Amino acid sequence: MSKGSETRREIIRRSAPIFNQKGFAGTALSDLMEATGLEKGGIYRHFSSKEQLASEAFDFTWDLAVRTRLEGTEDIANTVDRLKKMVRNFVERRAGLVPGGCPILNTAIESDDGNRVLRERARNALSEWSARIEKVVAEGKKKSEVRREIEPRKISALIISTLEGALMASRLLQEKQPLIWACDHLESYLDKEVRAGKAA
Amino acid sequence: MSKGSETRREIIRRSAPIFNQKGFAGTALSDLMEATGLEKGGIYRHFSSKEQLASEAFDFTWDLAVRTRLEGTEDIANTVDRLKKMVRNFVERRAGLVPGGCPILNTAIESDDGNRVLRERARNALSEWSARIEKVVAEGKKKSEVRREIEPRKISALIISTLEGALMASRLLQEKQPLIWACDHLESYLDKEVRAGKAA
Repeated sequence: MSKGSETRREIIRRSAPIFNQKGFAGTALSDLMEATGLEKGGIYRHFSSKEQLASEAFDFTWDLAVRTRLEGTEDIANTVDRLKKMVRNFVERRAGLVPGGCPILNTAIESDDGNRVLRERARNALSEWSARIEKVVAEGKKKSEVRREIEPRKISALIISTLEGALMASRLLQEKQPLIWACDHLESYLDKEVRAGKAA
Repeated sequence: MSKGSETRREIIRRSAPIFNQKGFAGTALSDLMEATGLEKGGIYRHFSSKEQLASEAFDFTWDLAVRTRLEGTEDIANTVDRLKKMVRNFVERRAGLVPGGCPILNTAIESDDGNRVLRERARNALSEWSARIEKVVAEGKKKSEVRREIEPRKISALIISTLEGALMASRLLQEKQPLIWACDHLESYLDKEVRAGKAA
């Protein structure tokens, strides 16, 4: 990797926590200069705009989040157990993430009435995350591990809504309880209403 | 009401949609001037700071949201049916609200790593909303309409998390479906797992 691309990556890595915590509008040039140790020219030699840097910082933050949410799920054979693990990962594996909470939630809330480029980024990430969950549900239906009447998109939407809302509440109240309750609820729901009975 | 307090209220009413859509950091003085038709001095004669105006705008937005979410609930005798109505109101009664989505969600996401005064406002609103739901659940337990083992705080947290997360997804994707699924799910959950059986 050239010196230039290394610097570029380092700027993204150091800016990501600022954008994820302060938001696009809330991030000042001075914040970026402090985080990177570079002057304005040193930063913007590598990016055409604040929007471009914020977009790449979003991708960095989201990539790390996805990998963490999927950790140890691939090797779980039963699809319902795999979904439960994805839920638990969201709740339990929060160390090592880019600080500031879920980048989809943060970017969605800030950009739903605003910045189109960032909004598109968040929307694609949400769709990608949803598609991953739907795929597991669909595989489960095929293997008769998931009840036949279950709609993959609905299960995916419920899991995402419940977890994202609980994350918002947990972060605001600075207590883990809403996330723990959300996890318990989803695990019990997956066992009781999604998992196919032995007779299925 | 004096002319001064009327102007003050009007500034709050007109600023509320700006803050709720653009956020605190994303709201520029020029946005507030355009919305109110006043110059800087005309606005800040009535408020000590942007933070004070944003706080009062939050209260205005939240007050309207609470009243809308509670509409027609008080006269429902059965507590589980009252909870279901509170859920449905959140999903169905979105016209007439201050544009921009739920002020708790918006303010929580922007301020969880930032502005303390607004964060406190959002936190109090969340606690107040949660307490209202908990009170209905507790009343339901007393009247044996709600199962004895149900914990009011947990039910309240689940309802809030699911609805707020679904609102985020619905607004980001610009489709109502996540909110409709959240409503269906919560209604079914309340019927199946919260409502006391006839034998109770």
